Amino acid sequence: MSKIRIAVLVGSLRRESFNRRLADALVRLGPDDFEFTRPRIDDLPLYNQDHDGSPSPQVTRLKGAISAAAGVIFVTPEYNRSIPGVLKNAIDHASRPYGQSAWTGKPAGILGISIGQIGTACAQQHLRSILGYLDMPTMGQPEVFLTAKDGFFDGSGAIADKGTRTFVQGWMDTYVAFVKRHAKA
Amino acid sequence: MSKIRIAVLVGSLRRESFNRRLADALVRLGPDDFEFTRPRIDDLPLYNQDHDGSPSPQVTRLKGAISAAAGVIFVTPEYNRSIPGVLKNAIDHASRPYGQSAWTGKPAGILGISIGQIGTACAQQHLRSILGYLDMPTMGQPEVFLTAKDGFFDGSGAIADKGTRTFVQGWMDTYVAFVKRHAKA
Repeated sequence: MSKIRIAVLVGSLRRESFNRRLADALVRLGPDDFEFTRPRIDDLPLYNQDHDGSPSPQVTRLKGAISAAAGVIFVTPEYNRSIPGVLKNAIDHASRPYGQSAWTGKPAGILGISIGQIGTACAQQHLRSILGYLDMPTMGQPEVFLTAKDGFFDGSGAIADKGTRTFVQGWMDTYVAFVKRHAKA
Repeated sequence: MSKIRIAVLVGSLRRESFNRRLADALVRLGPDDFEFTRPRIDDLPLYNQDHDGSPSPQVTRLKGAISAAAGVIFVTPEYNRSIPGVLKNAIDHASRPYGQSAWTGKPAGILGISIGQIGTACAQQHLRSILGYLDMPTMGQPEVFLTAKDGFFDGSGAIADKGTRTFVQGWMDTYVAFVKRHAKA
């Protein structure tokens, strides 16, 4: 039986990124009939409309990965009260050329973790307005605004705190149902 | 007498970009005691915090250009209801490392032109919230949401319509006063 494939995009390129580690911990909480891919966005060129007719292999690869997915999860830090340029550049690429966006209709989920108290809340609001334009049904609740602290992840990479782990498991369960509802529509 | 230097950043990399042409037309409307630079953002790497300690020459060049300016004008298209990833990547680079942002205190102005009716209005709202975080005093009025049409620019590159040209001249005059007020503070 083929699995339902979800693309997980991480907004930070930092090696020890909290959001990358959150994505790693998150995908372990998915059910057996789901699989998760991690499309690269670190090697994309900066978007230039002049190249719409001859996209780089990296852009074609990203669009293929999004097109092949039943849904997309964004796990992103907040940079300057918005999403990172790195992530927006990837979104711009896969939305083009006009009328050939890879994002259309893919059910989306958003999570974020930061050392700051608001836990990427502002970036997530910007991302929601972008995803609305892209016609991606975006799960509203539960919202995930996590604050990173020492020991947030245990030695195995899982979320250490039981309450937080249960909360993120609940997020995953809700997202899985959200994807299945949209897949049937 | 040394001139007041303003850095003009264009959010699009497209060769025939309406916003690039608007920036070209705009800088002609500046007064004699102002000069305008056009820092490159097309050759920046994608921002990665791991490289904060060893920035590329392109990043050092951008930060130097912003630091040397008395103010910054952003002329940007709207991509997917926000600013282009290309522009956000430049903003992210010059804001880092933490505590060493080049943007702090630079009086900012925003303009945009698009073929759509709303003329980059949504992108500009996202940009305003980013600039607020960066502690850049940002001119509120007049707002510039221009709609591109055939013949918007004349053969010399100036804004063809007299009413529109007068409006953009008024924007420039207001921005010049805004910069001088902040420079004196």
